[in-house]
Amino acid sequence: MGKSQEKEIYRNELAKRQQIIKNEGLPVIVILEGWSASGKGSALGSIIKFMDPRFFRVYNMDVISEEDKRYPFLYRHAIKMPLKGQFSFFDGSMMDEVTYRYLKGDISEKEYDTKVNSIINYERQLRDNGYLVVKFFLEVSEKEQRSRINNLLDSKNTKWRVNKKDLWQNKNYKKCKKVYEDYLKKTDSKACPWHMIKADDKDQVEAIIANTIISSIDSAVKNPWTADIIDNPYEMAKVKKLSKIELKGKELTDDEYKVKLKKLQKELAKLHNKLYRKKIPVIIAYEGWDAAGKGGNIKRVASALDPRGYEVFPIASPSSEEKNRHFLWRFYNRLPKTGHIAIFDRTWYGRVMVERLEGFCSENDWKRAYNEINEFEKDLTDWGAVIIKFWVQIDKETQLERFTLRQNTPEKQWKITDEDWRNREKWDLYEDAVNEMIKKTSTKFAPWHILESNDKKYARIKALEIIVDEIKKVTG
Amino acid sequence: MGKSQEKEIYRNELAKRQQIIKNEGLPVIVILEGWSASGKGSALGSIIKFMDPRFFRVYNMDVISEEDKRYPFLYRHAIKMPLKGQFSFFDGSMMDEVTYRYLKGDISEKEYDTKVNSIINYERQLRDNGYLVVKFFLEVSEKEQRSRINNLLDSKNTKWRVNKKDLWQNKNYKKCKKVYEDYLKKTDSKACPWHMIKADDKDQVEAIIANTIISSIDSAVKNPWTADIIDNPYEMAKVKKLSKIELKGKELTDDEYKVKLKKLQKELAKLHNKLYRKKIPVIIAYEGWDAAGKGGNIKRVASALDPRGYEVFPIASPSSEEKNRHFLWRFYNRLPKTGHIAIFDRTWYGRVMVERLEGFCSENDWKRAYNEINEFEKDLTDWGAVIIKFWVQIDKETQLERFTLRQNTPEKQWKITDEDWRNREKWDLYEDAVNEMIKKTSTKFAPWHILESNDKKYARIKALEIIVDEIKKVTG
Repeated sequence: MGKSQEKEIYRNELAKRQQIIKNEGLPVIVILEGWSASGKGSALGSIIKFMDPRFFRVYNMDVISEEDKRYPFLYRHAIKMPLKGQFSFFDGSMMDEVTYRYLKGDISEKEYDTKVNSIINYERQLRDNGYLVVKFFLEVSEKEQRSRINNLLDSKNTKWRVNKKDLWQNKNYKKCKKVYEDYLKKTDSKACPWHMIKADDKDQVEAIIANTIISSIDSAVKNPWTADIIDNPYEMAKVKKLSKIELKGKELTDDEYKVKLKKLQKELAKLHNKLYRKKIPVIIAYEGWDAAGKGGNIKRVASALDPRGYEVFPIASPSSEEKNRHFLWRFYNRLPKTGHIAIFDRTWYGRVMVERLEGFCSENDWKRAYNEINEFEKDLTDWGAVIIKFWVQIDKETQLERFTLRQNTPEKQWKITDEDWRNREKWDLYEDAVNEMIKKTSTKFAPWHILESNDKKYARIKALEIIVDEIKKVTG
Repeated sequence: MGKSQEKEIYRNELAKRQQIIKNEGLPVIVILEGWSASGKGSALGSIIKFMDPRFFRVYNMDVISEEDKRYPFLYRHAIKMPLKGQFSFFDGSMMDEVTYRYLKGDISEKEYDTKVNSIINYERQLRDNGYLVVKFFLEVSEKEQRSRINNLLDSKNTKWRVNKKDLWQNKNYKKCKKVYEDYLKKTDSKACPWHMIKADDKDQVEAIIANTIISSIDSAVKNPWTADIIDNPYEMAKVKKLSKIELKGKELTDDEYKVKLKKLQKELAKLHNKLYRKKIPVIIAYEGWDAAGKGGNIKRVASALDPRGYEVFPIASPSSEEKNRHFLWRFYNRLPKTGHIAIFDRTWYGRVMVERLEGFCSENDWKRAYNEINEFEKDLTDWGAVIIKFWVQIDKETQLERFTLRQNTPEKQWKITDEDWRNREKWDLYEDAVNEMIKKTSTKFAPWHILESNDKKYARIKALEIIVDEIKKVTG
C-alpha cells in the first residue's frame, strides 16, 4: 500500500470517528506536546485538514495572556474542555508552562511537584468524567533540532517562527531532556497515557497520530471506562453531625447586631482593599437549607465590599452547555481573578446533594465527587485562594415557620415554590447527604463552617467574623 | 423629612425595583461617568449596598486589558449586557476611552466622530432591543477637583488611588471640558439621555442617582418603548434577485476543480500568514438553502488555514442565555481576535429569515434588524475587519435530489431532518425573505456574494477566489 493511499484511508477513518464520537456523546481531548521544531503545528494542521471544522476546536496554548495569569494555572486549560461529542486539539499543554518555569528556576522543586500532582489529578478527573484524553510527545534529537532551527532561521519567510525559547531549549537540550522525562513519566497513567513519537519523518508522525486517535476512540467506545473511587488522601478537620449542632441560645438582640454589623463591615471593607493590593483571591461558598437565610447573609457580606472587586453567583441547575461538560467546568468559569472575591449562592456541592438525591448523576459520579471536589479546592488553595465554605443551618420547625410566612405574605410568595415543599419532605435524606458531605470535604485547607441561623442576625455576624478572621490570616 | 429617612426610603424603593424588573424581564444598564475624583465609585458603592447582590453586576471599565484591545472598542461593553430582569452597573463607559484617545491625539477628529456615531447607534439599539439605559455624568469644577485630588494625595492610605490620568485631567481641565461637552451633547438622545449631576455633595449625588433609576424604571414599565424603523443611511451595492441568478453552466470538471483548489488553498494559506502578522481580523459568513453545500464549502476554506488562527462557529438556535439578550450578543461573543479568522455556518441573519418566518421575533424586531445588522457590520469594518458574506444558492430541484439522496444513504441520514422538509415547503416565503435581506444588507462595505452551488465544486472555487481577492485588497 502506497503512502498516499494509506493517508487517504486514515483521513477517511478519522472523519468517520467525528460522526462516531458525536453519536456516542464522547468528548475527545488531543494534546500535542514535544520539542520545539518537532513539527507539532504542521502535524496538527495535516490531521485536521480533512475533518469537519464545525465540530472541533484547535487551541494554541503557547502564549499565556495577562488575563490568564490572574487565574489558577489549570484554568486556561479547563475552560477549553470540549462539549460531549466534540474534539479539542491542544497545541501545547500544561507541560510546557510547568517544566519551563521549573527549568528557569521560577518555581521550586516542591512547587513543580505540586503542579505535576495537580495535572495528574486533573487528567484522571477528565477521564473519570467521560473525556477521552489522547496525549502525544514528539521527540527530536539535539542535532536534528539544531538543524531544523537553523533551516527556519535561514529563510526570511520562516525566520519569525523561531523564538528565544526555541534557541534556549536547544542550547540546554540535556537539562531539558531530564526534566521532560521526569514529567512524562509522572504524568503517564492508565487513564491518560503518553504516546511517544520519533518526529524524524513528517508523514510518519501524521500517520501515527491519526491512527492512535482512531484506535483510542474505538477502544474507548468498546470498553467504557470504569472510574475508581479513590481513598481520601487529605488531612481532615473535625466536624459535628448536624443533629449535634446546638441552635438554641445562638441569638443576638437588635442592638448587639447593629453594633457588631457596623464594626465588622467596616473591618471587612478595609481587608478587601488589602486583598486587592496583595492580589489574593477569595472564594466564599454558601450552602444550606431552603429559607435558612443565605440571601440575606450574602447581602450583609457583599454590601461591605467594593463593588468593583467582587461578584455574587447564584447557582441554578446547569444549562445544557454546562451539563455537557465536567461538573466543575461551570465553576472554573466563575473563579475570581487574583485580588477579587467570588461569592457563591449554592455551589459545586450540588453534585453530592441535589444531583445525588434526585438521580441527576450516577452513584459512581457522586461518590467520586468528594475527592474530585477536594482536589479542586486543593488546587485553588495552592494557587493562593482563601476558601470559606458555609453551611447555613436551621431546624425543621424554623423552616416551616419561614415557609408559611412566605406563603402568606404577598411580597414574599415568589420566594417559595412547590419544589421547596417537596425538598422539605426529603429532609432526612438531605440531612444524611449533608452529614456525609461535610465529613468528607472538611479538609484542613477548606473546612466547612456552620452558621447557626435560627436567628438570622446571629448567622450574619458569625459569617462576617469568620470571613474577617480568615482574610486576616493571609493579609497579615 | 431627614436625610437618613430619605435615604432609607429610596434604598427600599430601589430594592423593590429589583423585583419589578425581574418580573417584567426588563434589563437595566446604569452608566456612571464623570470627572476624576467626582466620586463615581463611592456613589456606586452606596447605591448598591442595599440591593440584592445576586441580581446585579458591577463592572469597572477603567482598565482595558490586552485581550480587549484585540476586539472592536464596543466589544468589552457589549459582552457585559445584562440578562433580562437584571442590572449591570458600569463604572466608566466608552466615553472615557474615546474622549481620552481623542484628547491625546491618538485618534483623529474623524475617527472620534466615527466612534461617537457607533456609540449613538449602539445605545439606540440597546433601547430598541428592550434595554433601559440610565446614564449619569458627575460634574466637579476644576478647583474642587484639584482640592479633592490633593486630599487623596495627602494620606498614604488614599494616595494610590490617584493616577497620572487624574493629574493630567486636572491640568488640562478646560481642554477636556470642551471635548466632554461635545461628547455629552452628541450622545444625549431620547432613547438614552444623560443625567447631569453636580457632584459637590455626596449624599445628594447618591439621592439623585437612586431616584433617577427608580423613576426611569417606573416610566419604562408604564410606557413601553416603541422603536422606530430607521431609513437606511448607507450606500448600497447592486444586487440581483435570486430568481435572476443563472445556475446553469456554472460547473467545473473534476480536473479543473483539483488544479484550482490546490492553487487557491496554497494562496490562502500564505495570505492567512500575512493577515496574522498584520493583525487584520476576517469574518466569513455563510447562509444558504438547506443542502446547498455550506459544510463542504467551509471545509475547503478551513483546511487551507493554520488551525491556530481560525475558528468555525456552527450557529444553532440560541440558548436561553442568548435569547435573554440582544440578538447580536452571541455574535459579539464569537468575534475573531485581530489577525484571526472566524467562519460562521449560519449567522446573525437568522433574525430576518428563520426568526422572521417562524415568528420568533416581532415584526418591528426583524424590520429593524436590517439596519441594526448594517450598523454592526459597519462597526466591524471600521475596526478593520474584512467581512465576506456568502449566500449559497441552489434551485429547488437540486435540493430535492440532495434531500432524497440523504434520505436513502444510511451514512447521510443524520444530515436530514423533518425540519428540513418543513422548511422546503416554505421555499417561496424564504425566497422573498432572502431577496429582501440581500437587498437591504448589501452595503458597499459588506456586500453579499452569491455562490452558485448546483455544482458544489464550482461554488467552492468561487468562494475561495472571493476570499483570496478580498484579503488581497487589505494585505496589499
